[in-house]
Amino acid sequence: MADRKHRVIIVGGGFGGLAAAKALKRADVDIVLIDRRNHHLFQPLLYQVATAALNPSEIAWPIRHLLRRQDNVRVLMATVTGVDAASRQVLLEDGSREPYDSLILATGAQHAYFGHDEWEPFAPGLKTVEDATAIRRKLLLALEAAERESAPARRRALLTFAIIGAGPTGVEMAGAIIELGRASIKGQFNTIDPHDLRVVLIEGGERVLPNFAPELSDYTLASLRRMGVEVELGHMVSALDADGVSFGDKRIETKTIIWAAGVAASPVAEWLGIESDRAGRIKVAPDLSVPFMPDIFVIGDVASITREDGKPVPGVAPAAKQAGKHVARVIMRRLAGDATPLPFRYQHAGDLATIGKSSAVIDFGWLKLKGWFAWWVWGLAHIYFLVETRTRIVITLSWLWIYLSGQRSARLITHGMAPERKPLEEVDEN
Amino acid sequence: MADRKHRVIIVGGGFGGLAAAKALKRADVDIVLIDRRNHHLFQPLLYQVATAALNPSEIAWPIRHLLRRQDNVRVLMATVTGVDAASRQVLLEDGSREPYDSLILATGAQHAYFGHDEWEPFAPGLKTVEDATAIRRKLLLALEAAERESAPARRRALLTFAIIGAGPTGVEMAGAIIELGRASIKGQFNTIDPHDLRVVLIEGGERVLPNFAPELSDYTLASLRRMGVEVELGHMVSALDADGVSFGDKRIETKTIIWAAGVAASPVAEWLGIESDRAGRIKVAPDLSVPFMPDIFVIGDVASITREDGKPVPGVAPAAKQAGKHVARVIMRRLAGDATPLPFRYQHAGDLATIGKSSAVIDFGWLKLKGWFAWWVWGLAHIYFLVETRTRIVITLSWLWIYLSGQRSARLITHGMAPERKPLEEVDEN
Repeated sequence: MADRKHRVIIVGGGFGGLAAAKALKRADVDIVLIDRRNHHLFQPLLYQVATAALNPSEIAWPIRHLLRRQDNVRVLMATVTGVDAASRQVLLEDGSREPYDSLILATGAQHAYFGHDEWEPFAPGLKTVEDATAIRRKLLLALEAAERESAPARRRALLTFAIIGAGPTGVEMAGAIIELGRASIKGQFNTIDPHDLRVVLIEGGERVLPNFAPELSDYTLASLRRMGVEVELGHMVSALDADGVSFGDKRIETKTIIWAAGVAASPVAEWLGIESDRAGRIKVAPDLSVPFMPDIFVIGDVASITREDGKPVPGVAPAAKQAGKHVARVIMRRLAGDATPLPFRYQHAGDLATIGKSSAVIDFGWLKLKGWFAWWVWGLAHIYFLVETRTRIVITLSWLWIYLSGQRSARLITHGMAPERKPLEEVDEN
Repeated sequence: MADRKHRVIIVGGGFGGLAAAKALKRADVDIVLIDRRNHHLFQPLLYQVATAALNPSEIAWPIRHLLRRQDNVRVLMATVTGVDAASRQVLLEDGSREPYDSLILATGAQHAYFGHDEWEPFAPGLKTVEDATAIRRKLLLALEAAERESAPARRRALLTFAIIGAGPTGVEMAGAIIELGRASIKGQFNTIDPHDLRVVLIEGGERVLPNFAPELSDYTLASLRRMGVEVELGHMVSALDADGVSFGDKRIETKTIIWAAGVAASPVAEWLGIESDRAGRIKVAPDLSVPFMPDIFVIGDVASITREDGKPVPGVAPAAKQAGKHVARVIMRRLAGDATPLPFRYQHAGDLATIGKSSAVIDFGWLKLKGWFAWWVWGLAHIYFLVETRTRIVITLSWLWIYLSGQRSARLITHGMAPERKPLEEVDEN
């Protein structure tokens, strides 16, 4: 082992981990990228899989495939269970250990229920491909069950869709669900009237898209209401079960609740035996290493980073990518013998969100866009950032098709058979 | 109810049921099409989903969507549990009943294990979208597990893929798996050599594609062997478990077995309380009605029909479509007061099968094609018969992409996490 190369282990093949691996392409190191899934996921478009506009494979690619032209990386599909910082080893579920010289932890976040984990079965979140197809199944099965339901109250509950949290994901889901529902109903269901459909967006704060400029929040709110979405602001959810959701002094009977309200970092702090903030994130040093563990870096949604102006770096794809590249640079500098600390500087590109089929809001800070023009910019930006050429072509065609025909192509219910009139939840477990 | 229209219930939205519904478009009837799934599936291309070339939604479309422009049909996503022929009602799982005047049973077939149902967990068949994505997951997880396996025997078993049955599905799977495996391995796995991959096709009969002309069987056999597929003829499988398959006096250790050997009709005979043949099919009258039950028709894979020359009508899509149209014609004639029996005449169009990426065999009877030209005819024929315009475009692009780049786009493992080195089966249950 005398002459072996510096070994970099990256845990997580999301935006951060992948960017770090790619930025180390020309470095004289051996990289092992470990992920428990075989694919990198373009999460910003996941809501379009959940609402039947796109196919899973249009926004997810095998990590091996993405790194096939990079010789210094080995991809391992495995589940990490811990880190032994003393012996510099990553522990895998099957009991084996992978030694590292530098470790990059980029394991991302999951949805979190603010201490109400019992809500999860009734209000799935949207983080993985499986989450998205499960929500798609739930949405489509609710329409199928409503078509067969004659009792007015049960029928109303089946045709009511509640989304909790009005950040970009919640807003995008609300707009897409009302369009999916109305387009599906048009000419395809016999007993459902488009006006029977209710989409309710529930937000604890005082405005939708709280990270955007207030004028864009106002515009989004007005747009959503014009589309028919009921928006309930300033209410925290107090109860939630198989039949509905309670907030403030209201109660909505619904069979479909989607959670877009909060995330928590994966358990990296536990692995390292150090402190984390309330959301499970680790406060990192300016160069993104873990304090007192200079060989371990934490990036993306697991890292808590404060910008020079005191604001936190947001949990978005560009931030994770920039952090991944930064850590690669730090490692290469150290290998070249330069140990002077290199602080991370985050460049905020802007915030984007779509509101339905042909409207969006974009907040660049210095420039604010809204309406159809913003939608085109949003679409072009997303197509540009997609990882694969073929995907760019396919998604462009898919969107054009939906735009022109109003038909969503991926309206498949898989792993779900005919809904019974009895408990809908049981059907979903199939 | 005095003035109500003649009510036709169609059970099953496959090729037969859908053709019947469409052929009744201009009839003065009320149609209810019942299926326990929400989609029609283009089964001839299902093996391409299983081998990561196509997405599920490229070969499956919501039945509602396909029939959206037809006003006299109502689509019901529901599970049929029986037929009450005396009161002319179809029984649904939730206890409700749907009355009919004419009933068309087009419920298709499932894979069958010749009395060895205990083999199913180890050798999944390929009939539904879920079957296809489960097989895709199994194939891709085996490669991922092999990449991490150091014990030679276990590694060999992970890299061995057995297909049982050398009809069109078995042949197409064998060719596609060896191409998927070799293309995936190329530059993407570090420890696997393309020559480590073994694909074994096991057939009980004396030749592959037994329904084709012998010269095409010979050509196919030679092509498969040239591609590296091991073909074992004249051996029935005698045992099968999680670790391998036995046939004749041989035993192959493998972690991935795919069943393409036999089908059995769905339990329509039970519903009607009548006799069926060994494969569960019902011997129908020349007009495709059930003997002594003139208002009930059975079509597609559930029907046993003998042609004028004494040969059986094969269980293929064109036969089901022709039968669906025929039954629609019989019903319309009866409604017009003409009760003279109208015997079904099957027109055999030909048999097609692909052998890998650019070779195929086609048996028109009067003309036999093989090689790359047959592959182009096969491709064009399938694109032509796809139900949706958009799908034709997308599939054409997908195939061109695979043809030119060798990359399969749908190589996602969903519902499956990192493989452990221990039992692979457990992982698949996720």
